[in-house]
Amino acid sequence: MSKLWEKANTKVEDIIVSFTVGQDYILDKELLKYDCLGSLAHIKMLRKIGLLKGKDFVALKNGLKEIYRQSLNNSFEINLEDEDCHTAIENFLIKKYKDIGKKVHTGRSRNDQILTALRLFEKDNILKINILILEIALKFINFAQRHEFIPLPGYTHYQRAMLSSIGMLFSSYAESLIDDSELLISTLNIIDKSPLGSAAGYGVSLPLDRAFSAKIMGFKEVHNNVIYVQNSRGKFELSIIHSLINTLSTLNKFSTDMILFTTKEFAFFTLPDNLTTGSSIMPQKKNPDVLELIRAKSNAIIGYYNEISSVLRNLPSGYHRDYQIIKEPLIKAFKTTRESLEITLFIADKFQVNIENCKNAITKDIFAADIALEDTQKGIPFRDAYKSALEKISNININFVDNLKSKNHLGAPGNLGLNKIKQNLKMALSDAKKISNAFNKTIENLLS
Amino acid sequence: MSKLWEKANTKVEDIIVSFTVGQDYILDKELLKYDCLGSLAHIKMLRKIGLLKGKDFVALKNGLKEIYRQSLNNSFEINLEDEDCHTAIENFLIKKYKDIGKKVHTGRSRNDQILTALRLFEKDNILKINILILEIALKFINFAQRHEFIPLPGYTHYQRAMLSSIGMLFSSYAESLIDDSELLISTLNIIDKSPLGSAAGYGVSLPLDRAFSAKIMGFKEVHNNVIYVQNSRGKFELSIIHSLINTLSTLNKFSTDMILFTTKEFAFFTLPDNLTTGSSIMPQKKNPDVLELIRAKSNAIIGYYNEISSVLRNLPSGYHRDYQIIKEPLIKAFKTTRESLEITLFIADKFQVNIENCKNAITKDIFAADIALEDTQKGIPFRDAYKSALEKISNININFVDNLKSKNHLGAPGNLGLNKIKQNLKMALSDAKKISNAFNKTIENLLS
Amino acid sequence: MSKLWEKANTKVEDIIVSFTVGQDYILDKELLKYDCLGSLAHIKMLRKIGLLKGKDFVALKNGLKEIYRQSLNNSFEINLEDEDCHTAIENFLIKKYKDIGKKVHTGRSRNDQILTALRLFEKDNILKINILILEIALKFINFAQRHEFIPLPGYTHYQRAMLSSIGMLFSSYAESLIDDSELLISTLNIIDKSPLGSAAGYGVSLPLDRAFSAKIMGFKEVHNNVIYVQNSRGKFELSIIHSLINTLSTLNKFSTDMILFTTKEFAFFTLPDNLTTGSSIMPQKKNPDVLELIRAKSNAIIGYYNEISSVLRNLPSGYHRDYQIIKEPLIKAFKTTRESLEITLFIADKFQVNIENCKNAITKDIFAADIALEDTQKGIPFRDAYKSALEKISNININFVDNLKSKNHLGAPGNLGLNKIKQNLKMALSDAKKISNAFNKTIENLLS
Amino acid sequence: MSKLWEKANTKVEDIIVSFTVGQDYILDKELLKYDCLGSLAHIKMLRKIGLLKGKDFVALKNGLKEIYRQSLNNSFEINLEDEDCHTAIENFLIKKYKDIGKKVHTGRSRNDQILTALRLFEKDNILKINILILEIALKFINFAQRHEFIPLPGYTHYQRAMLSSIGMLFSSYAESLIDDSELLISTLNIIDKSPLGSAAGYGVSLPLDRAFSAKIMGFKEVHNNVIYVQNSRGKFELSIIHSLINTLSTLNKFSTDMILFTTKEFAFFTLPDNLTTGSSIMPQKKNPDVLELIRAKSNAIIGYYNEISSVLRNLPSGYHRDYQIIKEPLIKAFKTTRESLEITLFIADKFQVNIENCKNAITKDIFAADIALEDTQKGIPFRDAYKSALEKISNININFVDNLKSKNHLGAPGNLGLNKIKQNLKMALSDAKKISNAFNKTIENLLS
Repeated sequence: MSKLWEKANTKVEDIIVSFTVGQDYILDKELLKYDCLGSLAHIKMLRKIGLLKGKDFVALKNGLKEIYRQSLNNSFEINLEDEDCHTAIENFLIKKYKDIGKKVHTGRSRNDQILTALRLFEKDNILKINILILEIALKFINFAQRHEFIPLPGYTHYQRAMLSSIGMLFSSYAESLIDDSELLISTLNIIDKSPLGSAAGYGVSLPLDRAFSAKIMGFKEVHNNVIYVQNSRGKFELSIIHSLINTLSTLNKFSTDMILFTTKEFAFFTLPDNLTTGSSIMPQKKNPDVLELIRAKSNAIIGYYNEISSVLRNLPSGYHRDYQIIKEPLIKAFKTTRESLEITLFIADKFQVNIENCKNAITKDIFAADIALEDTQKGIPFRDAYKSALEKISNININFVDNLKSKNHLGAPGNLGLNKIKQNLKMALSDAKKISNAFNKTIENLLS
Repeated sequence: MSKLWEKANTKVEDIIVSFTVGQDYILDKELLKYDCLGSLAHIKMLRKIGLLKGKDFVALKNGLKEIYRQSLNNSFEINLEDEDCHTAIENFLIKKYKDIGKKVHTGRSRNDQILTALRLFEKDNILKINILILEIALKFINFAQRHEFIPLPGYTHYQRAMLSSIGMLFSSYAESLIDDSELLISTLNIIDKSPLGSAAGYGVSLPLDRAFSAKIMGFKEVHNNVIYVQNSRGKFELSIIHSLINTLSTLNKFSTDMILFTTKEFAFFTLPDNLTTGSSIMPQKKNPDVLELIRAKSNAIIGYYNEISSVLRNLPSGYHRDYQIIKEPLIKAFKTTRESLEITLFIADKFQVNIENCKNAITKDIFAADIALEDTQKGIPFRDAYKSALEKISNININFVDNLKSKNHLGAPGNLGLNKIKQNLKMALSDAKKISNAFNKTIENLLS
Repeated sequence: MSKLWEKANTKVEDIIVSFTVGQDYILDKELLKYDCLGSLAHIKMLRKIGLLKGKDFVALKNGLKEIYRQSLNNSFEINLEDEDCHTAIENFLIKKYKDIGKKVHTGRSRNDQILTALRLFEKDNILKINILILEIALKFINFAQRHEFIPLPGYTHYQRAMLSSIGMLFSSYAESLIDDSELLISTLNIIDKSPLGSAAGYGVSLPLDRAFSAKIMGFKEVHNNVIYVQNSRGKFELSIIHSLINTLSTLNKFSTDMILFTTKEFAFFTLPDNLTTGSSIMPQKKNPDVLELIRAKSNAIIGYYNEISSVLRNLPSGYHRDYQIIKEPLIKAFKTTRESLEITLFIADKFQVNIENCKNAITKDIFAADIALEDTQKGIPFRDAYKSALEKISNININFVDNLKSKNHLGAPGNLGLNKIKQNLKMALSDAKKISNAFNKTIENLLS
Repeated sequence: MSKLWEKANTKVEDIIVSFTVGQDYILDKELLKYDCLGSLAHIKMLRKIGLLKGKDFVALKNGLKEIYRQSLNNSFEINLEDEDCHTAIENFLIKKYKDIGKKVHTGRSRNDQILTALRLFEKDNILKINILILEIALKFINFAQRHEFIPLPGYTHYQRAMLSSIGMLFSSYAESLIDDSELLISTLNIIDKSPLGSAAGYGVSLPLDRAFSAKIMGFKEVHNNVIYVQNSRGKFELSIIHSLINTLSTLNKFSTDMILFTTKEFAFFTLPDNLTTGSSIMPQKKNPDVLELIRAKSNAIIGYYNEISSVLRNLPSGYHRDYQIIKEPLIKAFKTTRESLEITLFIADKFQVNIENCKNAITKDIFAADIALEDTQKGIPFRDAYKSALEKISNININFVDNLKSKNHLGAPGNLGLNKIKQNLKMALSDAKKISNAFNKTIENLLS
């Protein structure tokens, strides 16, 4: 089938078609399913406002459902000649239903069509990622509880600083993830608007019921001004990717810590053999590749942010073909985030704790600040106490667990609030699953 | 005065001091005021838990208020030898109050001290920026209302596409800014936690009342896990800067549009002479430097995001001196954002509209899609209507305003919802000012 | 076949294998061919130093040549279980040649194996890209010569500034590309070192003849220090990508200019219909998608730079699995650069010039600086002449071509030096092809 | 004094002036000296072509020399009202020499004036940085020689891999720096072109002798096409900053290694007390802040690259005010690079080596690959030897120095080629100083 826009008397050069289509016909496989859903919402709206008659509507609906089913088992073909999934869908419907197929694009542009597909794709991914984040946080909190008072040296500047604990370390990751979930959901809240009906960015002279189509797709509201809808392309994606970067930054901290703490020199934790990989030349190697790749992916995603950001600079209002380039880094950002979270969920609580190594690394100098602070309670000005603390160190005899428990202000190792955090996490996770289920229910309804 | 940590028997090399202090003693002038406020909260808390006696408390409070006053007129000196504002404050208090001064650091580390100062600085800036965003949005909406049905060509791919209007264009900026405000406040909501009392990142054996100090500084809650408090350094700043990037991306769109639309070739708008600048060689030039610099600054801020992001990669938990480097891009990001918003507020509604030029640029081909869509209402399948529309163009005679009004679905030029947006904006602005006033009141109370 | 390093008693979890292998088994198809070449060099060296006997050598050579041939028609399979192309090759050879196959990895690590494959891949791509750059430059110079004195308004700040010409504009692109070629070749000159024989980054106790293998692969020299060889991973790729960014920045300028100059409002040039694409909703649209995508890709590549840069931060010496992540942005950077250059070469001289539009846009104010400068030749101080020039404008009558020719200092429109540039370009292109042919000859020899 | 371009009847708004001037009047202090040099070259050229008479020339020369002298002790004032250093210079000359001063801008624009000043500034900095790079490399080689066969564990994946040495580690830094110097000088070679005489980017109708002014400023050649001269703004700076990033990436590796190797857990090296800094709360701390800040600055500079890169996206040919924004990241990039190199030069060879700790960390498993490779020399296929090597480890007894020396292929620890590298470095350093001296001599001549 031909391109939607091809003029009778002009044959566009093949090299131009091939260059402009680029990877779209491959990437769009990820979006096809969502494009069907957006199109279903569109024809339901057209029927409601009387622009599609019953029979035509049923044909188009069946056609779209068929494509949807094919998209699930990856059997629907999108060819380079189709340019993109939008055209492939229209071509399929025209081939199957003739003139009826030619009606599916009534009141639409590919501009709002792709925006709708992307936004459904984004919402679906965000809801799934949010569940993963909270599940990992819960595992970390459980691990923290199991090892709440196992002492660790606490480091600043890579140097031993003060007494820390496994409980404190792992609940720090959990609290970080809770914030990450909040930012992600805040971002979703901003983008949760239906672009459908914005057409090419200047509206159409048809009585489109945008509120209706927004509602049946489960969007919170209509994305109102149709120019702004177009201008949100890339802008919203940048915020999404930032919130993924923010999430992965917690995994960067976790993996960086664990790579350090599983070295032979630190050896506070051991990564079980069945989670390690080997070397092609050195028979003895058991490498933490899994941690290194979590770390690396948490960094690579910065590139996707910059890819989109660079493409967006200094483009005036309205659609530009440049926006096509945004698809790939967006799809990759979601993929890399989901994979990183899934593997982190798998390994989160599988580290072996080497208690003796932890204890042996706690040298007395770690308690210098404690000694100084103890003196301040006797009225000695802190700066003086600080200066005399080092001399007293050799005489001290400190029970690590007592020391940890003595630090009992909010957030200190003796008062981490793990139970409360756990309770909150369970509620958050239950909520996250409810929202996700509601979204799935919306999809089912669209397909019915 | 000497550094806080200098050992009796070791003289650190001057070149090391100078390199490690870097710009801190200059940059910290921006933070000094907030450091005083954080320190005031700390000593009030120390008094409450009995670690500071009444007389000592009064002395330290007076000292801190004196520094605060000096910070306002930039008369407090921070020298390279002081390293940073934290040390300068302690040195000042020790010089003035001797042993009492030595007590101000009880239960603190510079690690939580700088975090507290930064977070107050961030909150103050975010609240001010939020007001600016909403004020600009209101000006744009007013401008949109004044020119609601002035027709403009709507562009896609830099090519004339469909009919647009000044009302639609300027309200698109306003709606974008409303989202920007929402993201900024969502970000504030996440970082609105008190780091005070986290010390070096591992807590202290003193009964610090972190909830109390959080409350008197106006924070929403305590930033709980003290390791996570340290690990939030840079992480939170990255989210803040992303939300500033997001805000400036709207100004990028606005300035890019206006630079194009004030060229001699487009000429839909004119920038008044008293807003233009000239050339050193070409006497005729009236350049839109102000728009170009809004555009450029909206791009430069991407650099600050990457500066912080790059510094953070692969650092394990706990404080690292690397975090010092984050101050400068953060301070600059706020400065560049505030300046860009202030100048945008100044010029937002000063453009002269060249109505005739607008109309003359509306060539008939702009209505091709309208013709095709009109046919669909007669039952012609859209794809067929599309193919025959071009032939009909020469015969049409279209009233621009009627055409705009005929597009009356949500968000289209005939149904922009300007009144409702304006009403919401006024409420949002009133709320933003209330929150900002509440923050100022908190500061006053801290100083009392 | 199994992984090279799998231990008898440990089964690594499937999810770990799948996560760590990632896209490698797909991406490595791009590298397979070069890995065969590096392996051929390695076994030729092993034979030379006596570590491979004649019969074994011939078997391995035949095996590698067979894989090479399969790589050319994409028929060699790399499975997820193989992990990467290195293992796939070794598994193939072992399967086919039993114990002989087990010898191919003697004195190697996958660390130096991938480095060698990448560097050959990089060199091949750079040489091809360099030819494309120079070919485009030559087309631009030819176009400049054909339209040397067609006048154009010259713009600063998007505002008409002084008289320009098509000759000057298009030769500016050509000169920019000449610099781009120089940077690319300078970068090649730095990376043109053989990593082969560096093993895992610490050398081996075998008398490897690294100079020999470097020579037969056509490298300029041996990459000496074996730790530095490992540490160059990513470092060299960043320099390569910067030089590609630098090249594409010229295309960004070109495409941005042409998008502006082919608008209806400027209309100095027309993109022929067979190079434009259309809209799904607006029948009249002829969009410069090809230019927009050249522009967008020239920006997207910034993301690849940041992707690699972010992965590299704060990694100590020696191999880390993080380096695996660098492959994808590198491969994509070459691909996007080559495609962008190829399409630019195709369209470079196909623009229609609308001479009347060019002339009509040259308003008299454009000559204000000329008038002022003319007065300086009569002894009037420039700043005074500047101030009185505007009054004289209405009286002038300027022949555009004369004006262009009167600007005859070096690089001005009357003295662009096109012939000389053209001559230099032809020589450079001839050299570039020679070097490329020499590289191809080296490959042939490796395969013989 | 007023702005150069102010029109009689239009008063530009103060807020516009203040926003557009921005930091320029402060930043330009760094450039003032170079602007004087460029202006001196310009008036010498004007005299040569007869556009400046002897008396006028002498006056202007004296004026410019006076400003140059003031620039050296930072006593020349640039006010916000001046906008920039170019105007401040012209205003100074007009104030002092009346009508003669008004002649200094003959045939110039601030566009080529700033380009000339920047390029001289860049060249001066690059030449100085190049010397520093080579001096550090020489120190590293000397350190490597002093500790050539001190054994260290060699790491991959942060895990012990094979035997390494201090000699090999430190010469890896040196070799990396040699490449960095080469890239920097290659970049200089590309930008070493005189922009003077390109005026506003479209040339002038005066017989400017651009070759003459290029020569007396010491540029390699004239930057020919005057549009390309303008378009090189930012483009050249991006290449410069990339080569600084490349240089600092070597320091990133060095500082990251040393931070790890000076931890209590690794402890292969000790940073002397007088190079460490302390904590405000923990009396025992001796932190490697100096290394952390070298690391952090090597990362922060990525932000400057992105700042410039983002500003440049999608700007058409010709000057835009956006280019002003490039100054600050450029100046900061040079500053941060020079400071980082200077401090690295200071500490490069001051690390204490803890030989016993090094040896103790060399566990037997490190030799597993050696054992396997030894077997291959007996004819055992490598993959089989690999599989049986681990069993043999407990029986081995290895002399570390012998093992290091047995690895004697090029670049291995037994054959690092230190003497040759050292000799090459000394020659390179001598050359670098010669070029730098020649540049200084050029400046002297300009001032004479």
